[in-house]
Amino acid sequence: MPDKDAHLRWTELSRRRIASGVIFDLFAADRTSPGGKRGEFWILEARDWVTVVPVMLDPSGRPCFIMVRQYRHGADRITTEFPSGLVERGEDPAVAAARELREETGHRAGRIVALGSLLPNPAFMNNRAHTFVAELLQKDGAPTLDELESLDTVTMPVDEVFDHAGRGELVNAMTVVALAEYQRYRDRA
Amino acid sequence: MPDKDAHLRWTELSRRRIASGVIFDLFAADRTSPGGKRGEFWILEARDWVTVVPVMLDPSGRPCFIMVRQYRHGADRITTEFPSGLVERGEDPAVAAARELREETGHRAGRIVALGSLLPNPAFMNNRAHTFVAELLQKDGAPTLDELESLDTVTMPVDEVFDHAGRGELVNAMTVVALAEYQRYRDRA
Repeated sequence: MPDKDAHLRWTELSRRRIASGVIFDLFAADRTSPGGKRGEFWILEARDWVTVVPVMLDPSGRPCFIMVRQYRHGADRITTEFPSGLVERGEDPAVAAARELREETGHRAGRIVALGSLLPNPAFMNNRAHTFVAELLQKDGAPTLDELESLDTVTMPVDEVFDHAGRGELVNAMTVVALAEYQRYRDRA
Repeated sequence: MPDKDAHLRWTELSRRRIASGVIFDLFAADRTSPGGKRGEFWILEARDWVTVVPVMLDPSGRPCFIMVRQYRHGADRITTEFPSGLVERGEDPAVAAARELREETGHRAGRIVALGSLLPNPAFMNNRAHTFVAELLQKDGAPTLDELESLDTVTMPVDEVFDHAGRGELVNAMTVVALAEYQRYRDRA
């Protein structure tokens, strides 16, 4: 069967490593197009990411998310986000979601459901971002953070997060994506 | 007034440039925490991005999006996305949205409305991603693509895009974010 997209696909001739870091490696790929164009494209090779949407009822019976407030080095500001992190090499994304939930909030989930998997930035990143919802939560001690991590755990009413998504501290695009995926899940239920 | 977040904020001691590219520069920032921790954090300094949601009625009166199918170098695959691009230095994001719409689809918009502005990845990127809806579209010639850009323009029914968001070729997280922002705009109208 002929490839109807052959006119779009580029072919890699070679790639060189520019830098290797903790959360990604940077490469320059030398590629040619079907039409004979040639260019160098920068690519971040990164481990997959996981975002987890922890939902529970507060003491008054109101649905709430457990979220984290933290200083983000790239943006040099504090954001409020769903718990998230890197998937370890060989780790199942659902296991990574449960691990990040436990580490960042001190909770374990009775149920973890996969909501979807997207490409955070296919233009220059090769990784996927997986989203899970975590339900039937139980407190299981204090957060256990990475050496260079510091964050506050906060509980926010679900309605309030929907109302304020995209504004104030709720500006991490991956959190807004996870919220949209959670909304679809909730509306199906 | 005391800073209630002082325990979260890190202070930069110095930064060094690791690499400079077309779409971003990579830096390593040496930073200390209020608690006396110290670490090196990689940061991408990037121009802002813009995504535009072009919506029109097809000849049968059905609401449709104009989208682009293109090979994405980071993910090494073809995705279907809303038109998007970099905001030029000093350029108004709304102007960038109109420009990308014209370049990638050959359409001009009678109305461009800002839907929001997010941080694509505050963990290691410093830029914002702006989303606009483009309405009252008029065809104005053929697309005029950048030297190393090739893409196909496609028209997709709005309902179909909502149904398939996050699956198949509709996996660019920034497109899913823009769709969520468009949904909120449409539901308010």
